[in-house]
Amino acid sequence: MEKFMHALQFAAYKHRFQKRKDLDGTPYINHPIGVAYILSNEAGIKDFDLLAAALLHDTIEDTETTLGELEQEFGPRIAGIVAELTDDKNLPKAERKRLQIVNAGQLTSDAIVVRLADKIYNLRDLNRSTPVGWSEERVEEYFQWSSKVARQLFGHNVQLDTILKDLFLQRNIRFD
Amino acid sequence: MEKFMHALQFAAYKHRFQKRKDLDGTPYINHPIGVAYILSNEAGIKDFDLLAAALLHDTIEDTETTLGELEQEFGPRIAGIVAELTDDKNLPKAERKRLQIVNAGQLTSDAIVVRLADKIYNLRDLNRSTPVGWSEERVEEYFQWSSKVARQLFGHNVQLDTILKDLFLQRNIRFD
Ligand SMILES: [Mn+2]
Ligand SMILES: [Mn+2]
Repeated sequence: MEKFMHALQFAAYKHRFQKRKDLDGTPYINHPIGVAYILSNEAGIKDFDLLAAALLHDTIEDTETTLGELEQEFGPRIAGIVAELTDDKNLPKAERKRLQIVNAGQLTSDAIVVRLADKIYNLRDLNRSTPVGWSEERVEEYFQWSSKVARQLFGHNVQLDTILKDLFLQRNIRFD
Repeated sequence: MEKFMHALQFAAYKHRFQKRKDLDGTPYINHPIGVAYILSNEAGIKDFDLLAAALLHDTIEDTETTLGELEQEFGPRIAGIVAELTDDKNLPKAERKRLQIVNAGQLTSDAIVVRLADKIYNLRDLNRSTPVGWSEERVEEYFQWSSKVARQLFGHNVQLDTILKDLFLQRNIRFD
């Protein structure tokens, strides 16, 4: 629990200059908080280290946080989950998105549930409000891409699988 | 723990449009998170309901949240602590500040530790960066006023008392 509280403080501080892409300019920290909340509230997860990893999941990718820093502050398990979930920002965006599909099978179960909750948050966010500058086609493509990632990850948490399948079904994306 | 996670999500959502008064325009939610973190990390508090109340402590005062809403979502204890910590915004600011001193003696021990952590966060924030539009006199007055509130509240948590007395001592405010 001490680690979880530290992760909360740490993530809020690291993301303090960032906003989400919605019209409201929601503070970025609301996203990792929402991902942790999906895991707690909808997936029934009570493992504080995993919830801490959810709070931290975008810190390496989107702030100047390093893996070494996370290892030092939070230990190898939490840092490892975040590392698994970090895209390589040196690669072009299309390649990063391709790699999320290709590499999905190598993720640990810990990283998978955080990634599924991350996808749920982002898809609900797209349903709620179209990001500034996004066309309907881009939204549709995001759902298609997310479904290709998710397809590789089903089978680790039945609640998360059900929520995602419903979100895809609303866009006529099926998995049978 | 479910209530705590719900409080986190709820507070982040309710404060999503607000910023702190610092030059960086830090998201407001970083403040309640920081107050909860002081209680966990520096005061050794492990009571999740109390930490949830810390996350929610400014929701009634600074957002459209009602006491009834908090009672319904979080039950009487958490809602009660937040209610104790809510200034009456119908009153002029000077009167609200006077009442914090006068009414300090009526607070429960739960509310007192949250208020002490709130003061610690705000005083550290003032030491770190002067809010936009504040003169050095105004900062000094804020320390003086805070010391008058704090003086009524000492004796409930030795760690918090020590931190506050140090912060005041740096401004030559003593309590003997
Ligand atoms: Mn994310
Ligand atoms: Mn406050």
